[in-house]
Amino acid sequence: MKNIMLIVLDGLGDRPNQILSGKTALQAAFHPNLNRLIRDGQGGLMTPIAPGIRAGSDTSHLSLLGYDPERFYSGRGPFEAMGLGLEVRPGDVAFRANFGTTDSRGIVTDRRAGRLADGNSQLAESLNMEIDGIRFFVKAGVEHRAALVMRGDGLSDKITDSDPHETGRPVNRVMPVSPEGEFTADVLNRFLEVSREVLRNHEANEGRKKNGKPVANELLLRGPGKAPDLKDFREMHGMSGAVVAGIPMITGIGGLLGMHTLKPRGSTGTLDSDFTSKLLAAADLTKKYDYVLVNIKATDVAGHDGDAIAKKEAIERIDRAIGEMMRSVDEDTVIAVTGDHATPCSVRDHSGDPVPVLFRSKGILSDRSMFFDELSSSAGMWRISSIDVMNILKEMADRSEKYGA
Amino acid sequence: MKNIMLIVLDGLGDRPNQILSGKTALQAAFHPNLNRLIRDGQGGLMTPIAPGIRAGSDTSHLSLLGYDPERFYSGRGPFEAMGLGLEVRPGDVAFRANFGTTDSRGIVTDRRAGRLADGNSQLAESLNMEIDGIRFFVKAGVEHRAALVMRGDGLSDKITDSDPHETGRPVNRVMPVSPEGEFTADVLNRFLEVSREVLRNHEANEGRKKNGKPVANELLLRGPGKAPDLKDFREMHGMSGAVVAGIPMITGIGGLLGMHTLKPRGSTGTLDSDFTSKLLAAADLTKKYDYVLVNIKATDVAGHDGDAIAKKEAIERIDRAIGEMMRSVDEDTVIAVTGDHATPCSVRDHSGDPVPVLFRSKGILSDRSMFFDELSSSAGMWRISSIDVMNILKEMADRSEKYGA
Repeated sequence: MKNIMLIVLDGLGDRPNQILSGKTALQAAFHPNLNRLIRDGQGGLMTPIAPGIRAGSDTSHLSLLGYDPERFYSGRGPFEAMGLGLEVRPGDVAFRANFGTTDSRGIVTDRRAGRLADGNSQLAESLNMEIDGIRFFVKAGVEHRAALVMRGDGLSDKITDSDPHETGRPVNRVMPVSPEGEFTADVLNRFLEVSREVLRNHEANEGRKKNGKPVANELLLRGPGKAPDLKDFREMHGMSGAVVAGIPMITGIGGLLGMHTLKPRGSTGTLDSDFTSKLLAAADLTKKYDYVLVNIKATDVAGHDGDAIAKKEAIERIDRAIGEMMRSVDEDTVIAVTGDHATPCSVRDHSGDPVPVLFRSKGILSDRSMFFDELSSSAGMWRISSIDVMNILKEMADRSEKYGA
Repeated sequence: MKNIMLIVLDGLGDRPNQILSGKTALQAAFHPNLNRLIRDGQGGLMTPIAPGIRAGSDTSHLSLLGYDPERFYSGRGPFEAMGLGLEVRPGDVAFRANFGTTDSRGIVTDRRAGRLADGNSQLAESLNMEIDGIRFFVKAGVEHRAALVMRGDGLSDKITDSDPHETGRPVNRVMPVSPEGEFTADVLNRFLEVSREVLRNHEANEGRKKNGKPVANELLLRGPGKAPDLKDFREMHGMSGAVVAGIPMITGIGGLLGMHTLKPRGSTGTLDSDFTSKLLAAADLTKKYDYVLVNIKATDVAGHDGDAIAKKEAIERIDRAIGEMMRSVDEDTVIAVTGDHATPCSVRDHSGDPVPVLFRSKGILSDRSMFFDELSSSAGMWRISSIDVMNILKEMADRSEKYGA
C-alpha cells in the first residue's frame, strides 16, 4: 500500500486572458515540475461535481474527499461559518449573515449597513450569548458580512430567513417550515430581539450615528444549514487523513471529517503565502498519514481579483515549491494535482469549466499528456468528475477493495 | 436491424512491463486485425463500472450486458458458486466456503486445512444433502476453496458468516441479521452440525490424519448472497442473446439472464484455449441470435500469472483468430472488442485502469483511433463506462428506441 497526496490549486482553471496574449494563466506560466509530473503519469480533465456546475470550494472539496455533495451537503451556512473561522460541529445550525440597517419601524433601509468596515468584529462579539441552553456564536467577515452558529440540543435548519433580501421591507420573523423547526425558530427570534437591544446601544454604532453613517442595528440571517454528521474519514476510506490549508473553510471540512488539520506557519491563504514550507509540511505528513490533501488558495485569490499576471506568477512559485517538495517526498507516494474549480480572471468568480488533473504513481501507464494546462491535459486519458478522484487515488495506492469476484 | 457481437478479452488492460521494454502486453503484441477493426470504426477508453473501481468479472459482465450492478448485484457468493460450475437459480442463497480445521473444542486452527489438495472433491460431494426441504450443493474449487448453494423456499441472505475469519477463534453460529433470515440461519446451522459428523468420519480425512496433515473437518462459510432474479435478457433488451465462454462464471451469468450459453469444444478458459473455434462458434451464433457475447479468459490468466510474454502471445493468437472469424461473420454485424477490467501483469490482480474499447459498424464515422491499445485507443472519441456499451451497441445495430420525440 502506498500513501497519497492530493494537491488542490484552488480556482486553478482559467480562460484566455488578453494580457497573457490569449493564454490561460496555466498556459502562460513556466511550470516544468508540473509538466514532469503529468509526463511521467496520467492526465486529463476533471469536472468539479459535474459538467457545467459552478462548484463552491466546499462542495468541490467534499467531492474530492469522496463525499458526494448530493448526499452530504446541507447548505452553505456551516461552510461559510467555517470559512470565517467559526468552529462548526455536527448538529450545529449555521447561517450566513449581514449587518444591516433598519428604520424605527423595522423596515430594512440598507442590507449592508453602508458596507460597514470599522467595528464589525466588536459588534459580532457582542452578540455571543446563550438562550435556553442554546449557545450563539457570531463572527464578522469582510465589511458587513458575518456568520452565526447555534449550538445545543434539538436544533433544526427547517426554518426561514430573517433577511427579507431587499430594502424597503420589514425584517422577517423566523418561521418554522416544518414542525421540527419550531423550537429553533422560537429561540432564534428571541436571540434576534436581544441582539437588536445590544446593537442599538453598542458604542460602535454611537460612532457611526455621529458620523452620519448607517448604523448596524440588525443581524440579517439567511441560508440556514445544519452541519452534517459525516462519516469519519477513516471509517469511510480505511485510511488516516490530514488536511493542510491556509483558509479555515478547508481545515474546517477536514475537522468535520475527523481528519488531522494543519495551517502551517507562513501559510496565509493569500498570494504571499509560503508555498514551499506548506508543501514540505504536507510531504512530511505523508509519512504519518495515509492520505494528505493540501489546498493552495493563491490561484483562486488572483482569479477573484481578475489579475492574470498574479495568477501566472503564483503558479510559477507554486511549481518551484512542488519541485522542492518532490525531493523530500517518498517516491512511492501517489501524487495528484488538480483544482477544485476554475476561477477565470475574466469572470472574477467560480466558473463551470473543467480543470486539468494529473496522477503520478509508480508503475502506471504514462499517457499522451505532456503539459499541465487546460488544453494540453486533454491529450490525457481521463475525463472524470471530482467524485472519481478518491477512487482513482485509492486504486493507484493499492488501497481499494475489489468490487465483485 | 443488425446483429451484435461483443468480444470480451478478460483482464485485457495492462501496465508497462519491463520484460516488454516498458510496453503493455497489448502495445507489444502484433495484432493487425484488432488494429483494422479500430481503424475502420471508433475507439476510446472504457472504465469498468466507474473510474478507479477494481471490477470483478461478475460485476463487469453484468454491466456490459446492460444490468447495472449497483441495482442488480447481490454479493459474490452466487457468482463464486457459478465460477466453480455450480448451477445457481434465482432465489438460491450461495456462499464462498473454505475447508478448515478445528480442534476438539471447535476452535479454528487452520482456515485452509493445510491448503487441502487431494480429496477435496470427495469431501465436497459428501456434503450434498437435503434438510427440511432445503437442498445443499457443495462443490470444491482449487485447494481448500469451495462453494455452497442452498435451494428451496423461503431462503434469505440476511445471515452472518460461520467463518470467524481468523484462527484461534471458534466457528461462529450462523445468526440472522434480520427476522427474514431466521429460517435460513436455523437450517444452515443444522446443515453444519450434520456436515461436521460427515467430515469427521470421511475417509479422505482418515488419510490426512495418518499422514499428520490438518484434517478438513469444518466447512467455513462467508459472503452469503441471494442469486438475483434478473429480468430476462430478451425482456430487458428486446433481443435474443447468447453467451460463449470457457469458464462457468460467465456462462452462469448468461444462464441467470435466460440467454443461450455455449462452452465450445476446445475452449478451456486457459492459455491453451482454441480461440479460433471459439470465435467461429460465436460468429455462427450471430446468425441465430441478435446479440452474442464471447469471453476469452486467457489474457486474464496470464495477467494473474504475472506473465507478460504469455499475455502478449495470447493476444497475438486471439488476433489471428479474430482475423479468421472476420471472414465468416456477416459484414453487417456490429462488432465491439474490450476487456471486462485490467489485470496488469505487474499487479497480478484486477486493477482499476481504464481498458481500450473499439466499435466497428457499417456506416459510422471512423474516428482518429488507429491502433488498439491502452494508449492509442485514447485518440478515439469514446470515454465511457461499461454500462454504456450495451446502449452504444444497440444504437449502432438500429435496435434502440428514441428517448423522446
